[in-house]
Order: sequence, then structure tokens, then C-alpha cells
Amino acid sequence: MGTQRLEAFSDGVLAIIITIMVLELRIPHSADLAALRPLFPVLLSYILSFIYLGIYWNNHHHMLHVTRRVTGAILWANLHLLFWLSLVPFVTGWMGENHFAPVPTALYGGVLLMAAIAYYILQLQILRVEGPRSVLASAVGRDFKGKFSPLFYLLAIGASFVRPEIAEGIYVLVALAWLIPDRRIERALARAAPHEGGAA
Amino acid sequence: MGTQRLEAFSDGVLAIIITIMVLELRIPHSADLAALRPLFPVLLSYILSFIYLGIYWNNHHHMLHVTRRVTGAILWANLHLLFWLSLVPFVTGWMGENHFAPVPTALYGGVLLMAAIAYYILQLQILRVEGPRSVLASAVGRDFKGKFSPLFYLLAIGASFVRPEIAEGIYVLVALAWLIPDRRIERALARAAPHEGGAA
Amino acid sequence: MGTQRLEAFSDGVLAIIITIMVLELRIPHSADLAALRPLFPVLLSYILSFIYLGIYWNNHHHMLHVTRRVTGAILWANLHLLFWLSLVPFVTGWMGENHFAPVPTALYGGVLLMAAIAYYILQLQILRVEGPRSVLASAVGRDFKGKFSPLFYLLAIGASFVRPEIAEGIYVLVALAWLIPDRRIERALARAAPHEGGAA
Amino acid sequence: MGTQRLEAFSDGVLAIIITIMVLELRIPHSADLAALRPLFPVLLSYILSFIYLGIYWNNHHHMLHVTRRVTGAILWANLHLLFWLSLVPFVTGWMGENHFAPVPTALYGGVLLMAAIAYYILQLQILRVEGPRSVLASAVGRDFKGKFSPLFYLLAIGASFVRPEIAEGIYVLVALAWLIPDRRIERALARAAPHEGGAA
Repeated sequence: MGTQRLEAFSDGVLAIIITIMVLELRIPHSADLAALRPLFPVLLSYILSFIYLGIYWNNHHHMLHVTRRVTGAILWANLHLLFWLSLVPFVTGWMGENHFAPVPTALYGGVLLMAAIAYYILQLQILRVEGPRSVLASAVGRDFKGKFSPLFYLLAIGASFVRPEIAEGIYVLVALAWLIPDRRIERALARAAPHEGGAA
Repeated sequence: MGTQRLEAFSDGVLAIIITIMVLELRIPHSADLAALRPLFPVLLSYILSFIYLGIYWNNHHHMLHVTRRVTGAILWANLHLLFWLSLVPFVTGWMGENHFAPVPTALYGGVLLMAAIAYYILQLQILRVEGPRSVLASAVGRDFKGKFSPLFYLLAIGASFVRPEIAEGIYVLVALAWLIPDRRIERALARAAPHEGGAA
Repeated sequence: MGTQRLEAFSDGVLAIIITIMVLELRIPHSADLAALRPLFPVLLSYILSFIYLGIYWNNHHHMLHVTRRVTGAILWANLHLLFWLSLVPFVTGWMGENHFAPVPTALYGGVLLMAAIAYYILQLQILRVEGPRSVLASAVGRDFKGKFSPLFYLLAIGASFVRPEIAEGIYVLVALAWLIPDRRIERALARAAPHEGGAA
Repeated sequence: MGTQRLEAFSDGVLAIIITIMVLELRIPHSADLAALRPLFPVLLSYILSFIYLGIYWNNHHHMLHVTRRVTGAILWANLHLLFWLSLVPFVTGWMGENHFAPVPTALYGGVLLMAAIAYYILQLQILRVEGPRSVLASAVGRDFKGKFSPLFYLLAIGASFVRPEIAEGIYVLVALAWLIPDRRIERALARAAPHEGGAA
């Protein structure tokens, strides 16, 4: 089975998740600037989640780009990832509307943690099929970011109950760490190019 | 007519159905853990429906993978299936918000039953076009699961009015039966491979 | 320019339109069967609109299947069609929630009328590019249904103010007329096949 | 990396944005024509935003059509554009529901301005990869419209606080300027055709 329809379905779900989050920005009744003030934390949490979902889409895109065969296990590992990502709008809205209160901030980290684990499981399933000498295996390498992100989420969940600002700071830092262009797959493809040609 | 656009449209509708369900998880106003408690049955019913829609997407994906030609009858049988699946968010929300009360639980089974019948009709239409010697025909074989699921849904609908827990148990069991990887189409493709090559 | 992305975008919009309509089926608070009764007209109007949107998707699918080149005029004619179709959920909900009252029933016909005109304009734009000897031109032929549907919508709009039931009957009849498989494009393709091969 | 999945994801997000805007047209409770009157400004602002999003989709479609390689920077520039466009339904609803009051009208222009800048950044990123002799570079040329639109949005933002009608007029004029078919890319492709063939 090719990856095309898996990618199309994932793109669809991610596009919807990223877009329905904006529905939490409820239109205020009055028309003055002051009416926008209570929306500010909602907008901030929306931007944070938009970036996280963008990172997931980006990494998912790169990973499936070097995946050649889709098995039932991969399909379900992918749906499992989408399930946790589908909860992002809920925790984003809850955190934003409650001005980054402890429990919502911790739950936000919890969903990020579960999504990170689900992504890791998906990667494992694909690696099992692709094999240790695949482009993906060489691209993933020791996978520092993938292994450290969950630890940071755990740290942030704990910090939420002490000072939520620290938790938010950790979420922003992890996002920035992922935003720094990760050229592993691109480099691995370039190395593999003489043998494989442009896979796109 | 090829299957590409039928798949794309179905993927779109399924992606939206699976994602708008999460909108029923309404964001609570207070920021404590207790505020999440009433959402627990809604989350449970969301997970159940997410798995069912995942199964449908998965099976649909496999079935259309071995479909080579799309007729008007197939297009409409597919829309008929999507219609019943589009009612899943409604019955999921109704069942979850009413803590698995009898009538919503029975209606949930009713929609699953109609979706199963619609899927069966779609399969029949495709088999009519593909013919009895097609990869799909050999993959479907005697189609135990497809034939028994409706009986279990009927059983669950009846049980809803006696003890809704039994109905929920049946829904979970049927979902698990489908989750067990169904390698029929993959095996049939493998058997057909010498003659057909990788169709993906 | 190829038609692929135009189809993908249209499929996306149509998939969303067809699915967000179901959000008008608001989940009732009580858990008994009586709670579903007020939803019945909403469900009926949903089914009617689902079929209409299915017909549009189906015809759009067939028409673009035989379109080989997309111009700016075609892109905008297509967006114009999508605009009118995007108003279908609004008029569907308004008509259903008001139990097929005169004004909403007339407006429903008005949106169908505008969508039919928009479809006709799109067809004209494509025919201008494809030319009078194209597969599409031979498929469209004298286009009875395309020309008569607007007349029936006009009739229904008038009837809404006398007896809305008559208007609803006309909407159902027109939908049925379109549901009857329209093999014009398939036949035209078959005729063209010796020269063009399978265009899919 | 090819552009296919970037286009698919962007199409998905744009299709959802353009369609969820219509949810702001809230279904009135009474069934008479007078009930539609308060919706009129909401409909007007919906039409304006529908056209703007159509223009963005159209230009995006043309630009990616002549893009051959997607880098990480392009992926993020594209997500940045989608972020600003995702705020269009919010400002559209706010402006429409407040009958084009000064602050919402200015904010509408602010989002259009940011989207225009985001589009410009995306174009720069693609041009950096494609190079100064690419089809895109020759198509963009001196890019009058791209450079003047932001100035007009700034003008409109200022005018919002004096007379919002002037701001609305500017938004309509800029949209019309973009609607006038922009054949630059088509012409550039035609010029490049002897060397490149039909790129679609």
C-alpha cells in the first residue's frame, strides 16, 4: 500500500484541527478595542498550538516522504497520533480562556506528551517496516529531540502547579527547538540520492 | 472513471466527521479538575466513535485500493455510506452527554447498523463491477465480520433498553473484532501480485 | 494548468459544506425519543440538501473529468458556484428549524436557483475552452435537465408562498430527476474512447 | 521535496477557512424576511472575505504551480500565511456583526495587511530557491499589485477611524484589482513552454 491516501487523510484531519481552533476566538459583541483584551490569552494559546500542529505536520510530511509501504499497524499508529492531536483545540481553548491556570496548563502538557509518544510509536512502526538501513533510520539517528521533548513536557506538567509561567516557557522553548530547521531527513535523502534518485 | 477523486472526497468527509466530533467536548468555564468530570462520558463515547470511524476509513481505503472503476451506482452507494457516518457525531454527542442512557445508546447502534448496511451495499456495487474473479472478491470471501456485525448491533439495540452497559460492551467488542488486523485484502493482493504487480 | 488542484479544492469545500450541515442537528438535552421529534424536519431538510450537494459533487466530478485545461475564468466560475453552495447549510437549517415555513422554503429555492445558474456559467466557461467538438460538448448536448431545473426552482419559489408543501415536492422531484443516472458523459467518453483512450 | 502535499494541506486549510466563515451567518429564529435584515452586513462581509480568500487561493495555486522544490523555509512561510488567513473568519464576523464599525474595520485591514506581507515573504522564499531566471521570477516581474496592496490596506486602516465607508471602498477596490485576471504566470509559462513543456 502506498502512502498517498494516508497522507491525504492526515492532511485533512490536521488542516481541520488547526482551523477549528480559531473558532474558540469568539467574536465579541461590542466593537471597541477593549473587547479584544479578554481574547488575548486565547490568541496566544492559539498561536502556540498553531506552531505545534505546524511542527507535527512538517515532521509527519518529512517522515512519510521517506516511507515506502504502509501496513495496518502504521495506519492505526497514525490514527492514534491524530486522536491526541484532535484534543489540542480543546486543551488550547481551556488553557487560553482560563488565562493559563495550573490545571489547564498541565493538561495541555499532558496532551503534548501523549502526542509525542504517539509520534514515537508511529516512527517505530515505520522503522520496523523500512528496516535499519532505510533513509528514515539514517535520518532519525539518535533522535535527540524526539527523546527529550517528553521529558520537558513532564517537567512542564509538574511546573504548572508551582508556577504556570514556567510551564508555558517550557512549551515555547520546546516549540522553538523544533522550529530550528531539522535537516536530518533532507540530508539523509541527499546522501541516499545517488542510489535512490529524487523520491518526490 | 478512476477512484482517485472518490477517495479524496471520502477522505475529506471522514476527516471532517472525525474532527468535528471533538467540538462536542465543550470547554468548561472553571479551571479545576472537577470541571472535567462531566466530560468523561463524552470523551469515552468520542474514543469509541473515533475508533469506529478509523475502522471505516481503514476498510474503505483497502476496498477502494482494489477497485479499478467507479460507476454512478458506486458514487451514490458511497455517498449513502457517508450520510450515515455523518450522523455519528450527533449520536455520539447525544449518548455521551446523557451518560449512555437507553434511547441514545440504542440510536447509536441504529446508526452503526445503517452504516454497516450502507458499507455492505457499497461493497456489493463494487463487486458487481469488479466481477467474481477480482482481487476484491477473493479478499472479501465469506465476509464473516461484515455479516455478523449487523446482528451484534441489533442485539445491542435490544440490550440498550434492558441494560445499556451490555450494549456498550457489544459496541466495544465489535470494534475490537474489526481492529484485529484484517489481512484478507493484503493477502489477496499478495496472491494476485504475480499477475498484477503492486497496484499502489 | 491541470484540473487536479481545482478538483481537490472543490472537493474540500463540498466535503466541509456537506458535513457542517449536520451541526444544525443540535443535540437535545433530554435522553428520550420525544426529544428527537423537533429534530425531524431538520433531518428531512438535511437529507434533501445532502442529496443536492451529492448531485453537484457528482456532476462536477464528471464535468471536470473531461476538462483538460483550467483558465482564470474557470477558476472564478468555480468559486462562484462554491459560494452559492456554501449558503446551502444556512438555508437548510433555516427551513428545517422553521418547519418548512414559506419564506425559508422560498429562500432555499433561491439558493438552489443561483447554484444552478452558477453551474451553468461554469459549464459555459469550460465549453468555451474545450470547444464545440470536445467530449464535454457532445456529452452536454441539449442539456434538458440543466435548462429545466431553474424553471422548476422558480416555480417552487412562487409555490412557497401559496403552499410550501408543493415547493418541497418540486425540490424532491428535481433531485430525483438528477439522481436518475445521467450517463451522457460516460457515453460520450465511450464514443470518444477509440480516439482518446481512458482519460482517467 | 515536491509541492504536492504542501498544496493539498493549503487547499484543505483554505477550504475550511472559506467555509467556516459561513457559520457566522447564524440561523434566525423567526421565519420572516425581516429576520434576515440584521444578517445583511454579515453576508456582505462574508462575500468580501470569500473573494479575498478566493484570490489568495488562486494566486497561491499559480505560484506553487511554477515551484519545483519545497524547503523547510517555504513550509514555514506557507504556514505563516495560513495563520493570518485563519484569522479572516474572526475579523469578518466581527466587522459584519458590528455593521462596519471603525475598530473592526481597521482590524480587518490589519489582517489583510499581515496576510499580504506573509504572502510576500512566501514569494521571496520560493524565489530564493527557484532563482532569478525561473519562470516565477519572470512572472512576478516588478510585482506592482503585491507592492501596492499593503499601502492601500494601511490607507484603509487609517480611514477606518475617519469614515469606515472609505476603508470598505478601498478593500473592495483592491479586491477588484486582483480579480482582473493576472496572466503574468500564464504568459511566463507560455514563454517558457518551448523549453519546459506543459508543467501541469
